[in-house]
Amino acid sequence: MQNTKRVRLEAFSDGVVAIAITLLALELKVPHFRSNNLESSFFDMLPLLPGILTFVLSFVTIAIFWVNHHQLTQHLENVSKRVVWANMAFLLFQSLIPFATVALSENLQNSLSLLTYSLVLFGGSVSFTSLRFFIHRKEHLTRKSVNRSLVGPIIYLLAAVVAPFSIESSYILLVIPPLYYFLPKETK
Amino acid sequence: MQNTKRVRLEAFSDGVVAIAITLLALELKVPHFRSNNLESSFFDMLPLLPGILTFVLSFVTIAIFWVNHHQLTQHLENVSKRVVWANMAFLLFQSLIPFATVALSENLQNSLSLLTYSLVLFGGSVSFTSLRFFIHRKEHLTRKSVNRSLVGPIIYLLAAVVAPFSIESSYILLVIPPLYYFLPKETK
Amino acid sequence: MQNTKRVRLEAFSDGVVAIAITLLALELKVPHFRSNNLESSFFDMLPLLPGILTFVLSFVTIAIFWVNHHQLTQHLENVSKRVVWANMAFLLFQSLIPFATVALSENLQNSLSLLTYSLVLFGGSVSFTSLRFFIHRKEHLTRKSVNRSLVGPIIYLLAAVVAPFSIESSYILLVIPPLYYFLPKETK
Amino acid sequence: MQNTKRVRLEAFSDGVVAIAITLLALELKVPHFRSNNLESSFFDMLPLLPGILTFVLSFVTIAIFWVNHHQLTQHLENVSKRVVWANMAFLLFQSLIPFATVALSENLQNSLSLLTYSLVLFGGSVSFTSLRFFIHRKEHLTRKSVNRSLVGPIIYLLAAVVAPFSIESSYILLVIPPLYYFLPKETK
Repeated sequence: MQNTKRVRLEAFSDGVVAIAITLLALELKVPHFRSNNLESSFFDMLPLLPGILTFVLSFVTIAIFWVNHHQLTQHLENVSKRVVWANMAFLLFQSLIPFATVALSENLQNSLSLLTYSLVLFGGSVSFTSLRFFIHRKEHLTRKSVNRSLVGPIIYLLAAVVAPFSIESSYILLVIPPLYYFLPKETK
Repeated sequence: MQNTKRVRLEAFSDGVVAIAITLLALELKVPHFRSNNLESSFFDMLPLLPGILTFVLSFVTIAIFWVNHHQLTQHLENVSKRVVWANMAFLLFQSLIPFATVALSENLQNSLSLLTYSLVLFGGSVSFTSLRFFIHRKEHLTRKSVNRSLVGPIIYLLAAVVAPFSIESSYILLVIPPLYYFLPKETK
Repeated sequence: MQNTKRVRLEAFSDGVVAIAITLLALELKVPHFRSNNLESSFFDMLPLLPGILTFVLSFVTIAIFWVNHHQLTQHLENVSKRVVWANMAFLLFQSLIPFATVALSENLQNSLSLLTYSLVLFGGSVSFTSLRFFIHRKEHLTRKSVNRSLVGPIIYLLAAVVAPFSIESSYILLVIPPLYYFLPKETK
Repeated sequence: MQNTKRVRLEAFSDGVVAIAITLLALELKVPHFRSNNLESSFFDMLPLLPGILTFVLSFVTIAIFWVNHHQLTQHLENVSKRVVWANMAFLLFQSLIPFATVALSENLQNSLSLLTYSLVLFGGSVSFTSLRFFIHRKEHLTRKSVNRSLVGPIIYLLAAVVAPFSIESSYILLVIPPLYYFLPKETK
């Protein structure tokens, strides 16, 4: 499958990620306003706030995944079978993010919904790291870049493990990877 | 990230905008017809009218954003980090338009839903203007073109501010930017 | 706007049409099976049949629009402003097809839902014909090809006009354009 | 229609398949947690399990269809009319997979939902095989590759036929084609 074109793999991935990131907002529920009074409407809209915050967290997380994916596939020369399937696993977890986001936003204090959300991001992170290892040749993987690649999987796993014990710590952990990966370094 | 390809940024943006513009119509509710009689069905369909009008307003607004985005990225040479993220902010607000549209169409007389709708378009407009400033070099930004870029953000902000006081004025303001930007001039 | 790239116009159009055609199936309702008995399940699934038939009709109609759009844009040299906006109008009606399809499939005997469906296809057909006239230069438009272009708009308008009087005739008319345009001739 | 570009056919197909594969996860239902207690939440989430399993089966099935489609169109030189329409039939069945998946996941023990699911995959498989025969010239189709092409249609047809008699056997049959086609051989 060496001649599988990189362009089409990128286009397909872009399609799935673009859909996943756009569907996030589709899950936001329209508030039921009891009256057209501004103050009362404001209170009717308050319950939407957690949904909007989880929406923004997921949007930024997917956006960072995409920017790094984008960056990574530039180094892609041969589209091997394992690259295709690591990428498919990556897309599977991307497509699950909207579901995990609604489940979380409707159950913000529930440790299982938080654990599920963390596991979906853990899956996305692990498959992305595998993809990175398959794409970069051994000679390009420095110790520093390998460490950098492992931050995502480790933090997300930690967020999942911690969820049943401390919901607050788990949320804090979930915010770290987007911040850490915000600046995609030219590491190989 | 200088070698981030413009092509893929455009493709991803087109994906998100295409999905957002198509999802608009998905939110239209199928009327419940009490009988198959034409006149009575006509009255059953009347409540759909505001939904269709806000759908058309949002469709045209997104379409004009896309045409101008399209126009703008032709000048894009180096895809810098801030270009990527101004574009992501732009896409975030595009993805929120379908939600803001349903919220508005179900609460046409509610000042908060109108304020929300205006703020989403304000966000889209501000991020688009930032994108424009990041893409064009200083030497190409004439006073005239800068002024032109600020019309959108200012009008949408005004529409948001005015919403609690006069719903009619706010609606009139929302129609101005699409009309103004309908003709994309070759300004830089 | 002469340098607006045709490629991106095509990509955006493909995106919208691909989403509209895929959303059609999303509207199919999962039957409620009263038991796991095969015969009884079969009867539970029967009410789905009209939905599936209208789904297939709309799928084929959009597919034919796409094939002809595809064919048409090959002749596109300069992407003028009116080409962009005729295309946007075309996409607006494409994005309305899933809505019109559900409304019809839930009210197969209702003349207004049939009229609406016909009008949406009429709009798609008129905007496509406008697009064709804007893209082809006058010298290439033979009498024969102009006639061919008008078949769609005329038949769909007829289907809309006839709907309140004879539902059966209207359905028959709706099937004609897909059959007629099935074979895209190399007319200009 | 010889000059219909292969690139746009691929882009359109990628769009439809990307949407179908991403919509799969949209159908997963958010569990209703009775409390925030971890154990009780775990039991509230258990009913989601069959949905997740059918989601994964459908995701992998579509992914394998895509990888093979991808592989196949590399040999595509002339986009003939029958290639376009075999591809459209292929896309029609891809777009039906999310619907068939929900219908199945909500009625795992119902032979009709299983039969429907099998028939949708049978349709996808038959149209893909037709596409393959239309794309490859006769001289490239060896006996071995023809046999390989027929595995999918035959197994899916068998799964449909067997569904009313033995649900278990039908499920086992549904898992075979993804496994068999997992490794796309360079057969012509």
